[in-house]
Amino acid sequence: MSTAAAERVVARCRELARITDVPGETTRLFLSPATAEAHTLLSQWMLEAGLQTRIDDIGNVRGLRPAPTEDAPALLLFSHIDTVPNAGAFDGPLGVILGLEAIAALGDTPLPFQIELIAFSEEEGVRFAFPFLSSRAVVSELTADMLARTDPDGVTVAEAISNFGLRSDAISITTPLLSRTFAAIEVHIEQGPVLEAANEQIAVVHAIAGQSRLKLTFHGVANHAGTTPMKLRHDALVSAAEFITAVDRHAQGIPELVATVGRIEALPGAMNVVPGTVHLTLDVRHPEDTIRQQAVASLLDIADKAAQWKGVRAEAALLSEQAAVPMDAALTHQLKSDGPIRSMVSGAGHDAMILAPHVPTTMLFVRSPGGVSHNPAEDVRTEDVAAALETLVSFLRTTRPSN
Amino acid sequence: MSTAAAERVVARCRELARITDVPGETTRLFLSPATAEAHTLLSQWMLEAGLQTRIDDIGNVRGLRPAPTEDAPALLLFSHIDTVPNAGAFDGPLGVILGLEAIAALGDTPLPFQIELIAFSEEEGVRFAFPFLSSRAVVSELTADMLARTDPDGVTVAEAISNFGLRSDAISITTPLLSRTFAAIEVHIEQGPVLEAANEQIAVVHAIAGQSRLKLTFHGVANHAGTTPMKLRHDALVSAAEFITAVDRHAQGIPELVATVGRIEALPGAMNVVPGTVHLTLDVRHPEDTIRQQAVASLLDIADKAAQWKGVRAEAALLSEQAAVPMDAALTHQLKSDGPIRSMVSGAGHDAMILAPHVPTTMLFVRSPGGVSHNPAEDVRTEDVAAALETLVSFLRTTRPSN
Repeated sequence: MSTAAAERVVARCRELARITDVPGETTRLFLSPATAEAHTLLSQWMLEAGLQTRIDDIGNVRGLRPAPTEDAPALLLFSHIDTVPNAGAFDGPLGVILGLEAIAALGDTPLPFQIELIAFSEEEGVRFAFPFLSSRAVVSELTADMLARTDPDGVTVAEAISNFGLRSDAISITTPLLSRTFAAIEVHIEQGPVLEAANEQIAVVHAIAGQSRLKLTFHGVANHAGTTPMKLRHDALVSAAEFITAVDRHAQGIPELVATVGRIEALPGAMNVVPGTVHLTLDVRHPEDTIRQQAVASLLDIADKAAQWKGVRAEAALLSEQAAVPMDAALTHQLKSDGPIRSMVSGAGHDAMILAPHVPTTMLFVRSPGGVSHNPAEDVRTEDVAAALETLVSFLRTTRPSN
Repeated sequence: MSTAAAERVVARCRELARITDVPGETTRLFLSPATAEAHTLLSQWMLEAGLQTRIDDIGNVRGLRPAPTEDAPALLLFSHIDTVPNAGAFDGPLGVILGLEAIAALGDTPLPFQIELIAFSEEEGVRFAFPFLSSRAVVSELTADMLARTDPDGVTVAEAISNFGLRSDAISITTPLLSRTFAAIEVHIEQGPVLEAANEQIAVVHAIAGQSRLKLTFHGVANHAGTTPMKLRHDALVSAAEFITAVDRHAQGIPELVATVGRIEALPGAMNVVPGTVHLTLDVRHPEDTIRQQAVASLLDIADKAAQWKGVRAEAALLSEQAAVPMDAALTHQLKSDGPIRSMVSGAGHDAMILAPHVPTTMLFVRSPGGVSHNPAEDVRTEDVAAALETLVSFLRTTRPSN
């Protein structure tokens, strides 16, 4: 694959990143003015590549490379073009623009399947505090409840669709995937440090990790830091700290498990008062649900022991739980077989996890320099983009729909 | 000593507690309207006990039991009548009102020394965010800088004195202690759980602990909690937690040392982000300065090791340092010799630490039920007040000024 093609992908991602709702940042929210502008630019690129181009009624930009027959099987390339606030240029757009470049690279080569390219309009969940609205639409999982969600200004999803010039009552007609979609592939930056640490360019993804989120509270006794001897304390923060180090040690011992205490609050929060109460969050992820659930159970036991050590009481509440989503094994294997690349787990969620239960789906990760993401410093290397492009084009040239 | 006297002390503390700047609480700030009302009530009680009564120009209420000669040696009984916000009834007032009851119990008994009773107007440091203003005045340590401090409304200490009808330019004349003061005694609730845990009523205090306050920062790397494997993390909170448990273990091993992490903040503070930075505070106290300083040095070493464990960097800044203040050994021994009571350290600061470098000073602690203080639930037991009163009266009857 030519370096020029990879350079064009990177340049287009950076061009798209200049389209923003917040000057000086890259911030493009679902169905915002900047999104309309991004649609125009992206549609133009799709048309230039010879694709039949349209916007569906949830705001996805869709391009079609037809096959000789209209009812031919279909292959889907996709990612998203909405962003987190003050984002980088590549989380989402890379998969869309690289997909477009791969289609362009096919030239006039006849293929026995259609290729649809979808730029999903909503993955990050920023505007309505709820992710994956537009990929849920294409698999007919968008509910009336979701359409009734409101943004901070009180605008519902349905109203936002209407304000954008689209028709929420036509979503079920204009958004579904092509009926004979046999493969769906999302190219995405890794958003983590694994490939960089291994000095590798790209990887296939065999599963998106399941996730448990919990809130834990340690109930001790607040006391004067000067007048309460160490042996008469029930310091909630000392118990919580023992728990935090134990979470790290436990997770280090279980391959592919990640466990994180990201938030902590010690009350009353005065320099001269022994903390009486500590609230903290626990985020646990693993590609296998049984291992994750076992880890959560073990960590709750560990929390009780850490609490008992100081005569403190631990209390836990499950905030949310999300099952792991395996990618399609055959498709993942086929994409991987093109090169000596690793198969890894995605610790972050992606539109691919919404599509996977409905169509054979997989992902291709591109190395993230510094593991940086959700940050203006987010980057890719041109040679890694070239490797991903080569892998994808080679796959498109050789794959054939099974019957 | 009669139970009736102890009951009157408790009742008067509770009566004073109803005088407040904030209805429904006990909140009496320095030179506030409630303080003026408290002055009236307290002056009336002092006059009824036959004391010569006045308000000095920093707002202390002072009562004098004269001796046969005007230049006789003087003994000082004292504590304070300002409070923290939403305080209990006994932190401060107990020492003043119990001192008054002790003087009353002497009746007409002639003694070869004067007794001065001072109700200090400012100990907690709430209004001007600076403690001990009024005890500093009586030992001539109130500086122009301190008089220029402002409250949240921009009123200076000097203006507050003037607004209260007093004269800040007369402080150096009207506030100093009697020149031949040979002993100063502060009765105070313990504000801690030591006596209750030991099932003891009262104790003398041989030292007020020195204190070091530090701020520590652990600098790690913020990362995505899903995509960053455990082995590639530099989790600032895991290092900080290792430090917090080590602080507890270290302090448990050194008699009379207390060390507390009271505040903690983990940034960015999101459930799904590995903490990149942690700020926390460390409060270390001990009656011997060298032991405290050695402990601080050891804890900073421990912080470095805890940081290195996760490839994190620890940084520490000393916020304040206060030397330990020994009470007068002979006076403390004399007060103690009256009963089989323990000698202990005060982990909290008191006016006694301001006076001790200038006049022989000691303290008598009264058990705090539940160790509760700075709280409306703060309490004393009548029998413990009776024991303190008996000890104090017996001391007054038997002590003689040395030459």
